[in-house]
Amino acid sequence: MTTHDQLVTKLKRAHTLGTVAELLGWDEQVNLPPDSSDVRAEQLAVMAEAQHAAATDPEIGRLLGEIETQISALGSQPSHKATAGTATRSTSIADSDQMVIVRHARRDYDRATKLPADFVREKATHSSQAFHAWAEAKARDDFASYAPFLEKHLALARREAELLGWGDRPYDYAIDKHDPGLTAAQITTLFAELKLGLVPLVREIRESRVRADLGLLHDFPVESQRVFLREVTERLGFNYRRGRIDVSLHPFCSGTGADIRMTTRFDADRPLRSLFGAIHETGHGLYEQGLPRVHLGTALGQAAGMAAHESQSRLWENQVARGRAFWQFFEPRFRALFPAQLAAVSSEALYLAVNAVQPTLIRVDSDEVHYNLHILLRFELEQKLFSGALAVRDLPAAWKALCAELLGQTPANDREGVLQDVHWSGGGFGYFPSYCLGNMMAAQLWATIRRARPGLEEEFARGDFSGLLGWLRENIHAHGRRFDTLELVRRVTGVELSPQPLLGYLRERYGGLYLK
Amino acid sequence: MTTHDQLVTKLKRAHTLGTVAELLGWDEQVNLPPDSSDVRAEQLAVMAEAQHAAATDPEIGRLLGEIETQISALGSQPSHKATAGTATRSTSIADSDQMVIVRHARRDYDRATKLPADFVREKATHSSQAFHAWAEAKARDDFASYAPFLEKHLALARREAELLGWGDRPYDYAIDKHDPGLTAAQITTLFAELKLGLVPLVREIRESRVRADLGLLHDFPVESQRVFLREVTERLGFNYRRGRIDVSLHPFCSGTGADIRMTTRFDADRPLRSLFGAIHETGHGLYEQGLPRVHLGTALGQAAGMAAHESQSRLWENQVARGRAFWQFFEPRFRALFPAQLAAVSSEALYLAVNAVQPTLIRVDSDEVHYNLHILLRFELEQKLFSGALAVRDLPAAWKALCAELLGQTPANDREGVLQDVHWSGGGFGYFPSYCLGNMMAAQLWATIRRARPGLEEEFARGDFSGLLGWLRENIHAHGRRFDTLELVRRVTGVELSPQPLLGYLRERYGGLYLK
Repeated sequence: MTTHDQLVTKLKRAHTLGTVAELLGWDEQVNLPPDSSDVRAEQLAVMAEAQHAAATDPEIGRLLGEIETQISALGSQPSHKATAGTATRSTSIADSDQMVIVRHARRDYDRATKLPADFVREKATHSSQAFHAWAEAKARDDFASYAPFLEKHLALARREAELLGWGDRPYDYAIDKHDPGLTAAQITTLFAELKLGLVPLVREIRESRVRADLGLLHDFPVESQRVFLREVTERLGFNYRRGRIDVSLHPFCSGTGADIRMTTRFDADRPLRSLFGAIHETGHGLYEQGLPRVHLGTALGQAAGMAAHESQSRLWENQVARGRAFWQFFEPRFRALFPAQLAAVSSEALYLAVNAVQPTLIRVDSDEVHYNLHILLRFELEQKLFSGALAVRDLPAAWKALCAELLGQTPANDREGVLQDVHWSGGGFGYFPSYCLGNMMAAQLWATIRRARPGLEEEFARGDFSGLLGWLRENIHAHGRRFDTLELVRRVTGVELSPQPLLGYLRERYGGLYLK
Repeated sequence: MTTHDQLVTKLKRAHTLGTVAELLGWDEQVNLPPDSSDVRAEQLAVMAEAQHAAATDPEIGRLLGEIETQISALGSQPSHKATAGTATRSTSIADSDQMVIVRHARRDYDRATKLPADFVREKATHSSQAFHAWAEAKARDDFASYAPFLEKHLALARREAELLGWGDRPYDYAIDKHDPGLTAAQITTLFAELKLGLVPLVREIRESRVRADLGLLHDFPVESQRVFLREVTERLGFNYRRGRIDVSLHPFCSGTGADIRMTTRFDADRPLRSLFGAIHETGHGLYEQGLPRVHLGTALGQAAGMAAHESQSRLWENQVARGRAFWQFFEPRFRALFPAQLAAVSSEALYLAVNAVQPTLIRVDSDEVHYNLHILLRFELEQKLFSGALAVRDLPAAWKALCAELLGQTPANDREGVLQDVHWSGGGFGYFPSYCLGNMMAAQLWATIRRARPGLEEEFARGDFSGLLGWLRENIHAHGRRFDTLELVRRVTGVELSPQPLLGYLRERYGGLYLK
């Protein structure tokens, strides 16, 4: 075995242990008997330890050093910075398979080894405690009891950034963990431009007399919902020979393309929620299934980042499945499965329900027009928390004020305000921006694909989604983590990531429905 | 932490890794998408490696040595042999918690560390290849293609015994792996006595004019079967807050009492098979759920052996659930769920179907009267294979001859003969006797319990199985692996393990039905 092959073997071993832990997580949400969570916690702890040991195996460090010396002797440095700036000039070297694998392996290895075991343990313990504190605080609408946990999480996040050499830019480090290469400054610019176009659009739609009927759909038997959902996701291209969908409290997608485990939830009176939830997870699943299987366990078999991942789920959920062409094909089948429930529902009323716009205080219930405003709010508050401009104790008031400004509504309590999301309770800072960046990227990809395949929506209307999937496979999935998010967008769409395609898409779709 | 606590922590860690691997196995049978077996194989291999590393952690050896020195200084040796002979004399020392844990930990540690890594890998690889060779040979009824694999498995089994100091008694070692302390000589004596009583009973029943109608039950909807099965197993005492039941091709029970995963299979025309399969697995599950949770991961939280395990599944399946008192309670509910299907079925016909006796060539389809003959056959052949009295190439002929002698039927081919069971393809020698020993033990426990609780069957007729479960919890489950199988039987029933209670039970139940 060459040095590189030895490295890859080590990386794959650590990755495989991670996939086992992930399956335990899936099983916990889908199958775990109610009183068995104690044993699952023990299993997860032991697996985390085993995975950490595999990822910090000194042999990985030795192999990396050896390969880097070889590369260096060839006259090129596999450093992250060198690549980002020179990607367009010298892709053949910096973006070669080996260089990509080594660059990311070095980054991951350093991050895993530079954190002292004590720190890792303290953070894990605190995350577990903070999660329970958050759940209880939310149930009792008692932010004050949770505030110390959030403060400690912020302190831990700053300390982690410091330990890894990002002490002067802790929030940039938090972002980089989810979307390598992106910075808060870049996101600030993108979000400011988005806000400029989005706020007037939201106002116009709100003032429209067109209203979707949110109480239109009732009594959709779960078994038939399941049938429809399966038909839809299968036709979109999800490979059920390497994946499955089950039911859990909150929908998610886990696993790798070799074995994808998605979930959804069913409600007889909210059939569209189950359907679009499942399509969203299918978008994630299709991305994972499209990553080069032979590279699973290395950066080439890994998604480019969270924004790219979210771009895939949103593109299928929104651009595709909320579009007229999609419903042109699926509406007859939907009516065949639910003839009584849809008897009095016109096609236009159904399509409006699919694209209902309705402000809500809750991010996860939000329509795609309002959704990005929820992210702008969180991004602004996270930045202020990290800069010190905002103290944790002042967070609820700041949330309410910003909510009023952006959404035109003020939460009556912290349950539907600052306590609504789970992310921060696990120390998950810098994650929220990815959702909005994913929406931007989805719209920009969508515009590019429509130009590249002018007959795309006719294909959808015939129930053929393979053209789109093939395009995504080739232009996004096949690259794995070869390019950072911004570089990937540049290469695929020919221009820099911008909020304009998203604004254009929203105005086209929702303007057509609400601003006639 | 004391040295003992440190040891227990290490043992529990290895155990927990084992439970993760077991969950992967369950998921493979229940959930795995059809094309994902490649990734599951990788996950299982990595977990086997991690588990082996944890079980052979040199720190375990050091801690064991230290504790053994301490114990030795106290004037007692925690050796296996010393205990077996002196158990009745000095239980307070040899059977103390610490001694039991240390004795078994030493045995397991030696077995895990004395096998060279090369040997372990060779055996694992061969098992995988032999399994596929067996499956193919069975499909094509081609024993000759499988014979070399079986020969190699025998050679590996002998080599393993030799490496562990059992070179002169390789088959005893194979038995000891499943039922610590038992020998082929002891089993030979027990089986000979059983055969003496069983053969005439089988002949009498076969000559009876009473016949169960095997085609009595049809079109039992799976959903209602599921409801009935859940009600039954719940009432027998299975704790669904720490376990679940799902569907797989072959029924099994996996996991620990902290999270039991059982499976069954459904067939609309064979409702009793699903039901009794599930009750059998429930018996295993109740044992695991009854083991002291605090000791999970040590010998005190582990079943006494395979025979003891099988005694629990058989007792619930046969002595309890094929009995009149059980049906007195459950028949009305069964009829309420399947009124049309049972309209023309009398209570007596139903009870006879529950206790149908019908010779078959296939062990897993066998009734409980014939079942033990299938085991006698396998035990005799295994002994001859190990002694060298029988060559692998002569196995099919020997199987057929013995089949004719014991079952009065001759397989037309090897698919329904020597190729029917999976066990040997994985090197699982010495496992079959446990089934029959379990049947003996179940009957002997049953006789003891009925003496101890004269009103037991009246309790069953009222749907109350808690008295039986409580007795088993106290007399069997609570002990874990504190006593070897034979010692456990002696302590609980007051006499040595014997086939007479089994013969008495079979004659009582089946004589009453067939020999009136």
